[in-house]
Amino acid sequence: MSAPKKVVLAYSGGLDTSIILKWLQTEYGCEVVTFTADLGQGEELEPARQKAELLGIKPENIYIEDIREEFVRGFVFPMFRANAVYEGLYLLGTSIARPLISKRLVEIAAETGADAVAHGATGKGNDQVRFELAAYALNPDIKVIAPWRIWDLSSRTKLIDFAEQNQIPIAKDKRGEAPFSVDANLLHTSSEGKVLEDPAQMAPDYVYQRTVHPEDAPDTPEYIEVGFKKGDAISINDEHLSPAQLLTRLNELGGKHGIGRLDLVEGRFVGMKSRGIYETPGGTLLLEAHRGIEQITLDRGAAHLKDELMPRYAELIYNGFWYSPEREMLQAAIDHSQQHVTGTVRLKLYKGSVRTVGRWSDHSLYSEAHVTFEEDAGAYDQKDAAGFIQLNALRLKLLAARDRRLKN
Amino acid sequence: MSAPKKVVLAYSGGLDTSIILKWLQTEYGCEVVTFTADLGQGEELEPARQKAELLGIKPENIYIEDIREEFVRGFVFPMFRANAVYEGLYLLGTSIARPLISKRLVEIAAETGADAVAHGATGKGNDQVRFELAAYALNPDIKVIAPWRIWDLSSRTKLIDFAEQNQIPIAKDKRGEAPFSVDANLLHTSSEGKVLEDPAQMAPDYVYQRTVHPEDAPDTPEYIEVGFKKGDAISINDEHLSPAQLLTRLNELGGKHGIGRLDLVEGRFVGMKSRGIYETPGGTLLLEAHRGIEQITLDRGAAHLKDELMPRYAELIYNGFWYSPEREMLQAAIDHSQQHVTGTVRLKLYKGSVRTVGRWSDHSLYSEAHVTFEEDAGAYDQKDAAGFIQLNALRLKLLAARDRRLKN
Amino acid sequence: MSAPKKVVLAYSGGLDTSIILKWLQTEYGCEVVTFTADLGQGEELEPARQKAELLGIKPENIYIEDIREEFVRGFVFPMFRANAVYEGLYLLGTSIARPLISKRLVEIAAETGADAVAHGATGKGNDQVRFELAAYALNPDIKVIAPWRIWDLSSRTKLIDFAEQNQIPIAKDKRGEAPFSVDANLLHTSSEGKVLEDPAQMAPDYVYQRTVHPEDAPDTPEYIEVGFKKGDAISINDEHLSPAQLLTRLNELGGKHGIGRLDLVEGRFVGMKSRGIYETPGGTLLLEAHRGIEQITLDRGAAHLKDELMPRYAELIYNGFWYSPEREMLQAAIDHSQQHVTGTVRLKLYKGSVRTVGRWSDHSLYSEAHVTFEEDAGAYDQKDAAGFIQLNALRLKLLAARDRRLKN
Amino acid sequence: MSAPKKVVLAYSGGLDTSIILKWLQTEYGCEVVTFTADLGQGEELEPARQKAELLGIKPENIYIEDIREEFVRGFVFPMFRANAVYEGLYLLGTSIARPLISKRLVEIAAETGADAVAHGATGKGNDQVRFELAAYALNPDIKVIAPWRIWDLSSRTKLIDFAEQNQIPIAKDKRGEAPFSVDANLLHTSSEGKVLEDPAQMAPDYVYQRTVHPEDAPDTPEYIEVGFKKGDAISINDEHLSPAQLLTRLNELGGKHGIGRLDLVEGRFVGMKSRGIYETPGGTLLLEAHRGIEQITLDRGAAHLKDELMPRYAELIYNGFWYSPEREMLQAAIDHSQQHVTGTVRLKLYKGSVRTVGRWSDHSLYSEAHVTFEEDAGAYDQKDAAGFIQLNALRLKLLAARDRRLKN
Repeated sequence: MSAPKKVVLAYSGGLDTSIILKWLQTEYGCEVVTFTADLGQGEELEPARQKAELLGIKPENIYIEDIREEFVRGFVFPMFRANAVYEGLYLLGTSIARPLISKRLVEIAAETGADAVAHGATGKGNDQVRFELAAYALNPDIKVIAPWRIWDLSSRTKLIDFAEQNQIPIAKDKRGEAPFSVDANLLHTSSEGKVLEDPAQMAPDYVYQRTVHPEDAPDTPEYIEVGFKKGDAISINDEHLSPAQLLTRLNELGGKHGIGRLDLVEGRFVGMKSRGIYETPGGTLLLEAHRGIEQITLDRGAAHLKDELMPRYAELIYNGFWYSPEREMLQAAIDHSQQHVTGTVRLKLYKGSVRTVGRWSDHSLYSEAHVTFEEDAGAYDQKDAAGFIQLNALRLKLLAARDRRLKN
Repeated sequence: MSAPKKVVLAYSGGLDTSIILKWLQTEYGCEVVTFTADLGQGEELEPARQKAELLGIKPENIYIEDIREEFVRGFVFPMFRANAVYEGLYLLGTSIARPLISKRLVEIAAETGADAVAHGATGKGNDQVRFELAAYALNPDIKVIAPWRIWDLSSRTKLIDFAEQNQIPIAKDKRGEAPFSVDANLLHTSSEGKVLEDPAQMAPDYVYQRTVHPEDAPDTPEYIEVGFKKGDAISINDEHLSPAQLLTRLNELGGKHGIGRLDLVEGRFVGMKSRGIYETPGGTLLLEAHRGIEQITLDRGAAHLKDELMPRYAELIYNGFWYSPEREMLQAAIDHSQQHVTGTVRLKLYKGSVRTVGRWSDHSLYSEAHVTFEEDAGAYDQKDAAGFIQLNALRLKLLAARDRRLKN
Repeated sequence: MSAPKKVVLAYSGGLDTSIILKWLQTEYGCEVVTFTADLGQGEELEPARQKAELLGIKPENIYIEDIREEFVRGFVFPMFRANAVYEGLYLLGTSIARPLISKRLVEIAAETGADAVAHGATGKGNDQVRFELAAYALNPDIKVIAPWRIWDLSSRTKLIDFAEQNQIPIAKDKRGEAPFSVDANLLHTSSEGKVLEDPAQMAPDYVYQRTVHPEDAPDTPEYIEVGFKKGDAISINDEHLSPAQLLTRLNELGGKHGIGRLDLVEGRFVGMKSRGIYETPGGTLLLEAHRGIEQITLDRGAAHLKDELMPRYAELIYNGFWYSPEREMLQAAIDHSQQHVTGTVRLKLYKGSVRTVGRWSDHSLYSEAHVTFEEDAGAYDQKDAAGFIQLNALRLKLLAARDRRLKN
Repeated sequence: MSAPKKVVLAYSGGLDTSIILKWLQTEYGCEVVTFTADLGQGEELEPARQKAELLGIKPENIYIEDIREEFVRGFVFPMFRANAVYEGLYLLGTSIARPLISKRLVEIAAETGADAVAHGATGKGNDQVRFELAAYALNPDIKVIAPWRIWDLSSRTKLIDFAEQNQIPIAKDKRGEAPFSVDANLLHTSSEGKVLEDPAQMAPDYVYQRTVHPEDAPDTPEYIEVGFKKGDAISINDEHLSPAQLLTRLNELGGKHGIGRLDLVEGRFVGMKSRGIYETPGGTLLLEAHRGIEQITLDRGAAHLKDELMPRYAELIYNGFWYSPEREMLQAAIDHSQQHVTGTVRLKLYKGSVRTVGRWSDHSLYSEAHVTFEEDAGAYDQKDAAGFIQLNALRLKLLAARDRRLKN
């Protein structure tokens, strides 16, 4: 790869990406454009602007954007239509944010005439893959710079030294190393590393940042109603909300009741297993509610096909293949199924758990006439079941007859 | 079908199967053998013997058996190796018991020279299919009699009349209709029908029989450790237990903490949707724990393949195809994966929810050396990630280059 | 089912459906509407009109339609986008025609105020299922009458007697039984039954009707070029053709070279195995050509996903679930993949076989620069492969290390 | 990676691997062990011994082995049980040989105390991946050396210069470059590169080495009978043959009739598409015959599951994951299905194509009594089909009723 001339950096304003910023300037003598996004991580963005300016970035090269609505509408919601869960439990909160960041990096590169993008993910994780696959899929000629895989600032001490030598301000609490690493956005907070590295040890209470301890949650259950239209949540307790507003509100509700905590050891795409603590309060409610409304509005054939496709779909997102033909094909199938996933679900929230306790819809496929124990008025002829069973059994009988024949 | 000469009846001792017993005698003039099994439903079996004798069954034709160990060891545990869940939520508590009952019915028919078996499942449900597919798969020439699809005792009144005319004792509380219908075994209790038929309405509290209300569960969490060997649970808090003992103990623990309740609308194999309330306290703990131990002992490739195969596997069991070549094929694949699923999981039980909070194993694939944020001693070269990404990206780049080329 | 008042009958004009026509009139005293379609079966339709009139059908109740274009455009082509093959070999020629016939039956019922439709498929085959599932999916209240499952005209003699008693003209060669049964449309001819019932015996030469014997095919290969646009064939040797014209022309070419014969024992949806002889000359060319053009225009991720979904898709069509949410979901995924499946394939046709020998496209993803053995100009860095392999190998190494550790 | 001390080289005796041999000695000053295997590639092995000795390899470090039987029995046959085909057409002839070679390399390394293995595959292909993943899966600590990714002998001229400087004898016809590259073993011959790099151009006749041109094949068809036992072929025309003997004989038969040629553009695991000409005469017969015997001996449920799993299975082998838990899981499922795949298939071989024309087995599931058009003796009650259809249709009716309801 030839040296980059102008780089768009995914910039948080924190110490690590500030060091990267300076390192890019030093290493390549190149112009740097910073991109700082509000994805709902809960940090103010203006300090990032000031820091970028301090590090010599021209005002027109500082991009600060609130992309929460696009995040939820264009990424989180499509993913939840699939009931996507990685390895049975993980709601993909980090995975789903990366392609959007890459998309904006590549777009800003096009706008500013940059030939490269850069990110602060390490060489051991999945995020580097997600950032870079998305970038290459959107611009095959873009250069992607991953300083963590290149430089020799491989210890905390070296990083701090570099920062000091380059007049990068260091917050007091950043001098030492954090006891664990955090990623956050509107969908989730993940924590990993350091004190969490032994999967046998219970995560310390202070790791959790977004949900109260179930033991501290209210002693009284709360019931909420989530409204859906064509597979996407649109309201809470009859109040219509934009996608990001809705997820924000679900986060508050879930967090208050201690819902959505997950302690997981997962298989990374880069090959090793890692342990993470995830908090996805709103997403956990959303998944439960979406399954609840699908129960009455989605046909069995469609529902089972979705369930079979889901693990692959989740794996694609986890591995960074959001912008791939196969993810889009699966999305086309999933979206097709959601046309009638419209209605309302009642959830019970209580001390760490959420359960569907009711659901209703004009689009319901549930037919009391067919299922009732009462004598029905001809909706269903029980005698049909005999023929149904006979024909389903036929091949099994032929198998059993063969076994018997061969034994004799 | 020619008239049966001798029938083995799945007999609970209750009113309905007593009526069936008498109806079989009356309708076909045939000898009846009763089979009453303890599957952990929590009812005494001896009253069934007395009732059968009262209805004229010869002592040698009364089979009463405790098959709980076989149930858990040969059916429940193999199923949990697959993390089987139907439609995302249902732990298949009823489905998994049916093939075992059929197996014993067919075996007893062979022992007693009977040419038919009979069951008390209705023509609207899945259980008739499960009973009959299993029976035909085990003996292609067996006759299966399903009185509910044949007779005209289609209302409660007619049933009671028939019982009275035939001197079948009717317990006082059985004269009226139950407000809902129940099935129970060591894995779960399911309730459906009548007061539960409106899926919008919350199930009344009195429906739940096996789990306390989460609100009434202890205010202090309980931590337990479940030990696994080759995919099957073998101990709780270091105490080795037989399969049925272990599930019994998990049921007590889960039930005490209000864990394992499910309110579900599901798609029946016979075509309509139905609503059920399930309580699977021990199974819910077992599933969580099994996923927990797989997290560190199962390779990603195996784990993801299992996740992809699972919905089909669950569907096969739900639909009654336990004894089918395709279920056995899937089982062979799943069982192969469990060779190293050995170790211990710590669970936190609290007011309706269960979470894995730790897991350890001599068979662990988790490698702190590979995942650590610390400078590692060469276990993993971060530069490898660059090549990994480049080659994974290549096809995406070629796609993007095509798109660009065609646009110009 | 209450008696039908007016029935739309799928009417071929042959003896069997003429008997059905009369039987419907006799049995139910109902008005009959006949629907005779040209699906490319190679029979004239006007004799059907005359016969219908002779049997008392009012002119306005006689529907005769050429639906070949709709058949190929709306059913055959979408199916070939999926490379659909049932049980590895069968191109679904009969299966794919049934839903279209049912669609027209139901539409004509709506136009004519009929409350029922009727078909001439027997109770042992798949076609009854395909006709009826499609009809019910399009009109849940329609009545479907399948006389072969109802009447007692169960032998050839009884049928002939009924025909004679009812003044139904009987062609001389229809008096005895045909040595095998035939279904034909623009996609294929299938033959089964009677002389073909022993799967060990080679099918007699006279069974084949649409393809020459490979031994009799031209001694010189013929090369043709098939053009595709978005997954559908649009031209042969640069001549643009409508869908039905194109398939007709491919049939001529394939038939002339003895291509597309298949001797298959297949698993029917109704449970038993049956043996069929299929001739699908044009379809066989089309499948080969479609795979050929996909080779250079379809990304690997999309191609592999398609291959994995295909068996399910084919099974759905075979089983009669064309009009089902899950078939439509799969179609949405497949269609999404075909956007760039545009280009030309050269086929070699010779004595019973067809092979792709060249393909080219403006949409090609093939890059000589990447694949060449020559020193390349930097399109691909071979060193990247090392990292790619290392990270793919990591989990396998961890597995091997565990095995070694446990052995010691 | 630290420098290797002793390397086991996959050594063909040809120019390229002789250069690698010398390069290893020169570059690392390490001892080299050569492994030359007869996999049925049709070359004599003794010249390899002489050449190795000439290049200074000690006699005890020269391994020459005929592993054809192990190749077919342990790799080819298990793969054919799955009917494995990559991207619809490729029979995986190269892919399946690599893991066996790696297995022997690793085993010889253990025997000889070597710490590394080396292969001659380039950095652009799949073979490097297959060699290395297999090696690492069998010994996580082994070093793998791939000189083509390391050295700078990147042009033909440089290679020849190196050979001359190092006294490596160069056959006259190797001085220039071959017009294409070849890999061969008992299963297939593949040709690629150079004159084959334009996928639009027909492959020249001289590329084909193992099959006659169909036009030159005998004018008379040949019929053969292939016997199977538990999924593996065991005899041809009633003559029992060992696995390698059998495949050799099938190769002769297929080659004589011009069968098994394939011109394919495929998606490589390393990301680009490549074009290959494959000749798999015996394998093509074997696949057809195996499908033929499965048609009557394999249950529909098992057969369809196999078809759905197959693309994944083939992809795993193609990508080099033979020694992976997921391939083994799929193999367990597939092998389980083959218990009754026993019987005989008659094939017709004629001018480039092979077709099943008959099959029979004591294990047959085909039942003429069930399928016959004749009046049967009660094996099947056509009325059962009505119930079967009604219950399969129920969910489709409920869907249609919803659509209608929502429209009004």
